[in-house]
Amino acid sequence: MMYTIVNNELLPAEQATLRVNDLSIQRGYGIFDFFKTLHGRPVFLEDHLDRFYQSAAILQLPVHYTRDALKGLFRQLMERNHLPDSGIRITLTGGYSTDGYTLATPNLVITQQPLPANQGLHATGIHLATYAHQRQLPAAKSIDYLMAVWLQSFVQQQQAHDVLYHQHNVISECPRSNVFIVTADDKVITPGHHILKGVIRKQVLALAASRFTTEEKSITLQDLYQAKEVFITSTTKNILPVVKVDGQPIGTGVPGTITSLLAEDLRKVIATTS
Amino acid sequence: MMYTIVNNELLPAEQATLRVNDLSIQRGYGIFDFFKTLHGRPVFLEDHLDRFYQSAAILQLPVHYTRDALKGLFRQLMERNHLPDSGIRITLTGGYSTDGYTLATPNLVITQQPLPANQGLHATGIHLATYAHQRQLPAAKSIDYLMAVWLQSFVQQQQAHDVLYHQHNVISECPRSNVFIVTADDKVITPGHHILKGVIRKQVLALAASRFTTEEKSITLQDLYQAKEVFITSTTKNILPVVKVDGQPIGTGVPGTITSLLAEDLRKVIATTS
Repeated sequence: MMYTIVNNELLPAEQATLRVNDLSIQRGYGIFDFFKTLHGRPVFLEDHLDRFYQSAAILQLPVHYTRDALKGLFRQLMERNHLPDSGIRITLTGGYSTDGYTLATPNLVITQQPLPANQGLHATGIHLATYAHQRQLPAAKSIDYLMAVWLQSFVQQQQAHDVLYHQHNVISECPRSNVFIVTADDKVITPGHHILKGVIRKQVLALAASRFTTEEKSITLQDLYQAKEVFITSTTKNILPVVKVDGQPIGTGVPGTITSLLAEDLRKVIATTS
Repeated sequence: MMYTIVNNELLPAEQATLRVNDLSIQRGYGIFDFFKTLHGRPVFLEDHLDRFYQSAAILQLPVHYTRDALKGLFRQLMERNHLPDSGIRITLTGGYSTDGYTLATPNLVITQQPLPANQGLHATGIHLATYAHQRQLPAAKSIDYLMAVWLQSFVQQQQAHDVLYHQHNVISECPRSNVFIVTADDKVITPGHHILKGVIRKQVLALAASRFTTEEKSITLQDLYQAKEVFITSTTKNILPVVKVDGQPIGTGVPGTITSLLAEDLRKVIATTS
């Protein structure tokens, strides 16, 4: 049986609940972050905590927990669940609002799950379908995935694995990952604005900079279609090659060599930090 | 003590909970509707149920309850709570998702509360502040109020009572109400697109049509500022005059005569239907 923490209290997961007047249920208002543990050690934890506090600040949610208090809760949860390789999600909601609209004292929820099974997509690469949308308050990791969940049927119709948002012809991000392109002259480029800055994105930018020219700048749909390589990055996926966008093959239609090189560099960094 | 219904079960409100893996908490995914009861009778219930089923369809949420089943639940709740004048909220969430992302069997929550106290604003009118934003999937009454809750501090800074969304200079709606303008030649106009079509909006359009020329069409910020009268409509507010927008007085800066006339017409309709 898995355990979950709700406001300092360790509970069996089935008993981990919020009252229905919480602003997440009433108004979709809250933030979260998600990090991996490998061999019982959190990966890039400080980066995730930095972003957790930043998301809370953007959404005007006070965090009544110090970093050390949060780390103590993570330890408590990990000791109870005995799951060395896992994903830990920490959610902070708008709280129990008396009028269902005004912010109240936030509720903190920490859950731990097994990592999703590897589906072999790193070898084959994935297909993306683009869609015109801009996330609300993009610099915060809010719980607003209305469009992302809603677009799952669109992704299936397009026979794609995920959706990539763009607006006015400029791409931004996938719902749960950042996107990179490699140009014909081996520049590694990723959007710098109107996105959530991913923890793996930051690592990949640093790794790529030691081998190639990197840039954070606007990428148009045309840049994307004409890229030599495309990949996405996230905590669960690390680096995942993209071989098709909107039905059109990227480069030679197979995972690229620079993508593979960076994936291997990232694997090494994660192995040494965990 | 108030009672709440969660999936057919009548519970004391403090025990009305959802597990934290519900997609409302995980991904802000759900819809709702809200209607009034007066003297123990629901007001415009069929319209609210029409919209509830429409919102669910837009968000791809199956409703495993017939209209009669829902009405039976409302009766059960009203008999238990003994609150003849009330607001009833019916929420349908994305359900308990095993992967925290894919839609599951929706959870149904029905709550009843006393009506908010009248703050005397119908006599004085309110101030609106405009903000560039377009609601996601606007034809559905989703629980996505990320921007609305976030903008409460902006509304306070602007010394306004509520925010009015616009995009590319064209106004749409307030977070929880529709907006109407009365032009210098006594046309009653309200936006027809990119909005949630309110139940009171529909009543007011019908009432206004028997006295004035009415139109559903685009309204620019300039149209708004130059209007003779402005008012908003909602289930809790009925018709509420707007006397200032972005710090500029509307018309003579006091509630308008056509607004008052329509408010009185609406009061009569509500009195006969409840």
